Amino acid sequence: MELNFAVLVNGFVCKNANMVSADDFLFRGLDNPRNANNMLGSVVTPVNVMQLAGLNTLGISMARIDFAPYGLNPPHTHPRATEILVVLEGSLYVGFITTGNQLFYKTLEKGDVFVFPKALVHFQQNVGKGNAVALAALSSQNPGTQQIARSLFGATGPVDPSVLAKAFDIDSNLVKLLQAKFAASG
Amino acid sequence: MELNFAVLVNGFVCKNANMVSADDFLFRGLDNPRNANNMLGSVVTPVNVMQLAGLNTLGISMARIDFAPYGLNPPHTHPRATEILVVLEGSLYVGFITTGNQLFYKTLEKGDVFVFPKALVHFQQNVGKGNAVALAALSSQNPGTQQIARSLFGATGPVDPSVLAKAFDIDSNLVKLLQAKFAASG
Amino acid sequence: MELNFAVLVNGFVCKNANMVSADDFLFRGLDNPRNANNMLGSVVTPVNVMQLAGLNTLGISMARIDFAPYGLNPPHTHPRATEILVVLEGSLYVGFITTGNQLFYKTLEKGDVFVFPKALVHFQQNVGKGNAVALAALSSQNPGTQQIARSLFGATGPVDPSVLAKAFDIDSNLVKLLQAKFAASG
Amino acid sequence: MELNFAVLVNGFVCKNANMVSADDFLFRGLDNPRNANNMLGSVVTPVNVMQLAGLNTLGISMARIDFAPYGLNPPHTHPRATEILVVLEGSLYVGFITTGNQLFYKTLEKGDVFVFPKALVHFQQNVGKGNAVALAALSSQNPGTQQIARSLFGATGPVDPSVLAKAFDIDSNLVKLLQAKFAASG
Amino acid sequence: MELNFAVLVNGFVCKNANMVSADDFLFRGLDNPRNANNMLGSVVTPVNVMQLAGLNTLGISMARIDFAPYGLNPPHTHPRATEILVVLEGSLYVGFITTGNQLFYKTLEKGDVFVFPKALVHFQQNVGKGNAVALAALSSQNPGTQQIARSLFGATGPVDPSVLAKAFDIDSNLVKLLQAKFAASG
Amino acid sequence: MELNFAVLVNGFVCKNANMVSADDFLFRGLDNPRNANNMLGSVVTPVNVMQLAGLNTLGISMARIDFAPYGLNPPHTHPRATEILVVLEGSLYVGFITTGNQLFYKTLEKGDVFVFPKALVHFQQNVGKGNAVALAALSSQNPGTQQIARSLFGATGPVDPSVLAKAFDIDSNLVKLLQAKFAASG
Repeated sequence: MELNFAVLVNGFVCKNANMVSADDFLFRGLDNPRNANNMLGSVVTPVNVMQLAGLNTLGISMARIDFAPYGLNPPHTHPRATEILVVLEGSLYVGFITTGNQLFYKTLEKGDVFVFPKALVHFQQNVGKGNAVALAALSSQNPGTQQIARSLFGATGPVDPSVLAKAFDIDSNLVKLLQAKFAASG
Repeated sequence: MELNFAVLVNGFVCKNANMVSADDFLFRGLDNPRNANNMLGSVVTPVNVMQLAGLNTLGISMARIDFAPYGLNPPHTHPRATEILVVLEGSLYVGFITTGNQLFYKTLEKGDVFVFPKALVHFQQNVGKGNAVALAALSSQNPGTQQIARSLFGATGPVDPSVLAKAFDIDSNLVKLLQAKFAASG
Repeated sequence: MELNFAVLVNGFVCKNANMVSADDFLFRGLDNPRNANNMLGSVVTPVNVMQLAGLNTLGISMARIDFAPYGLNPPHTHPRATEILVVLEGSLYVGFITTGNQLFYKTLEKGDVFVFPKALVHFQQNVGKGNAVALAALSSQNPGTQQIARSLFGATGPVDPSVLAKAFDIDSNLVKLLQAKFAASG
Repeated sequence: MELNFAVLVNGFVCKNANMVSADDFLFRGLDNPRNANNMLGSVVTPVNVMQLAGLNTLGISMARIDFAPYGLNPPHTHPRATEILVVLEGSLYVGFITTGNQLFYKTLEKGDVFVFPKALVHFQQNVGKGNAVALAALSSQNPGTQQIARSLFGATGPVDPSVLAKAFDIDSNLVKLLQAKFAASG
Repeated sequence: MELNFAVLVNGFVCKNANMVSADDFLFRGLDNPRNANNMLGSVVTPVNVMQLAGLNTLGISMARIDFAPYGLNPPHTHPRATEILVVLEGSLYVGFITTGNQLFYKTLEKGDVFVFPKALVHFQQNVGKGNAVALAALSSQNPGTQQIARSLFGATGPVDPSVLAKAFDIDSNLVKLLQAKFAASG
Repeated sequence: MELNFAVLVNGFVCKNANMVSADDFLFRGLDNPRNANNMLGSVVTPVNVMQLAGLNTLGISMARIDFAPYGLNPPHTHPRATEILVVLEGSLYVGFITTGNQLFYKTLEKGDVFVFPKALVHFQQNVGKGNAVALAALSSQNPGTQQIARSLFGATGPVDPSVLAKAFDIDSNLVKLLQAKFAASG
């Protein structure tokens, strides 16, 4: 697979079959712990078609999530994928919200598996005292991620404060404050 | 189509073909203005497989959106559908946010058409002095809607305040205040 | 989206994501009445991937249909789409024919919605005294349209008259007369 | 999940896997010539999910077409399938009409293969002196067939003559005559 | 359709619609018997998107299979397709193996039709005294074929003998012997 | 298939949405090592729709694979899924065979990720001195598994020895011996 083409198609243009080799299907190093000492206390290491070209058209990808103590993978969606997650280390409070506005949540321990249905808002929070690690698989080679708070308050544009003030039922000045914070941390 | 079955499948169970009639493909009254004098100043009238059983398996649906002056159809997603919208009356400030965290927005006048790609966060706000009306079509007979602010702060569960405090970088007490407001208005 | 490429794929080649802007998702002017004073008394204004490049791969499109008094959108199919239609103005006699050879029809008034399932023959006729206008949405960004009478009697080729004479159980001379009319009006 | 119900779904309900046997995947006798001495001079023997239950969900089916001398399989569509056809015996004039209103046609001899893309109007006519036989495969277990002339002029309903008169640019009396003929031969 | 492009996509790049003609949808000569006097006693003549470019994106293809007496189309899979097969001449012992490890088999005579579900291991053996001929259709324009014995023992690589010895519960020397035979006959 | 059955659908019938709870999306205990001291030296712990009902219709599943020293997950296919695998512990020699009959293989260490495209024959072998563990995700909630050697030589049926003798170019007596071994170990 060749990712630097001028011509893009749905997903990516494929290499000529004769030029493909086993290396196109390999990604190394997902066991490396990543430093999650950022503001949210979590870091995602994706292994999708951007990192592993052989996934192109095959409808699946992976990600590793490292959590610092109390770290949060904040509410987000994957517009094109369901996620299935297994805890490798630590304890996670996880949940997704249905279109009926109900939170489905569990506290997961090592070895527990949970499903986040396609495109629904979901999150994972480390509720143990040490680090936590999870491995996730997603039902698309290019699932996309939309972090909700950053999308709304940190989008380049930005979203008009009156929209966010009314949607969240908060003061416009608070909206502007939040937009400034997200702009600074972007 | 029979929508009151105990057994649900992907979507809904179909009527026996011999029992289907033209009435199963008809919905009346989408021209009726709806009163949008609620907190947000907007009201959505869906015409999907719940209201129009003949849409089952056919991959499309409609909705009418009425806006009071300054009314807002707040940031939301359709987990299973792209939306295409045309303005029938008034002026709308509309936008969606990409997975690259960029706001794509326009001010639409009567007759303008805009596209909101599958499952991305988007909104529409009436920026004219009078009422506004839009007609939307969605690429699923059962698109689903997830209103973002209400999902996060008003979900039955509820979401643990520490998740929302960290995600939005706000105080836990503000989170609890917002959760109380959304619970009251739910 | 770039529609003038030498290389075409399923649908169209996508622009590089960095070059896309909000303009790619906007189409203006669908509120403009179109003159339907042609032979059939109807005119279709499509808003699909040809007119609105941002629809590419997103599985939906729109169209406006203007009818003169007694105007007809004649029997046709969309090979790749279901259609959902709402009447904006006037009264329409509409119908589709099932594979079991049954006509499902209704007379629609302003605000009525009707569904024409994927690829089945269907039509709409203005049965009011004034103009009529309908808005349709289709479950493909590139639905295609095959007007039945014109396909059969007006195709460049043309279809051998003996095929049409036998299929419609009419005289070959009548076939040739019809072919000449459609050729002249093409 | 609840597995014990009496229902119809998209297509057909599947047998319990334990009850399935090789007989569910077998259909016998497609080599039997069928008498095509009817008005059109052709007869289709379908082998789809109605005749061969094991095809359910598998996305393919077959049909045999027998032609009397000068027999015609008249213009029709398969709303849910592409067709690929091979001539087993005789000579066939075949064609389909594109959405650009162009006839693509060929005269096929024994062993020739032709493709009729999804849902487009197409036909096959025996142009040899003897019988002809073709074998077709379709890209759906339930492709459906809509015979164009019979749909329009013979549908139970029926279609209002004014629609057909205007669409075909013929006199209403001729429409009524044709409707009477198709009703009689239905 | 143009198959010699530098840019490949899912399947193949399409010709510009204006350059397509009826010839792109035609393949001639599938009635020609092929010589099956090879080691296995069978030969497959494919008619897929490689031979018939008009099939691109249309989800179907064909193949003719010629069998010498006692000839075998050995156990294989089509990773992307279901197969439906009809016997044109002779008697075939055919079967497929389910994921529950059950053989579903039949002896087919002329005119019998059998289904081999998507991607399952299946085979056909001539059990009559003369030649046999079958026609197959597949639910993909590019179904792919993986001959099982040749894949395992004849792959360029090759597969490490210890894998095959353990999988088949045979001696490593036998594995090496088989690998040598397949390499010689490749 | 019978249409009046107590029923299965594509996948499984869904619970009424009101009856679904977070427990339907949870599976516990995938961290438990499993004893792989069987003939092949490997054991697979699936987490698909059979074990985790909430996966229904969502297009993804997981599995854990435990390997004893020198243990083998023998050549097999998943008829309905691509697999992406990450090594949690140990060293694995892995490979898949293309439809062009080429082995794509790698030796994976802890943290390495490899892709096995949809429905192609593939295998994993422990080449380290200790146990090995891998986690796999599959692009279907019901991927199915077809173990090649056991399918061919151990299917209930069984496959006629002459088919296997000719396919593998081995003696019929060896085929019968292998069939007896697989029958005994089934």
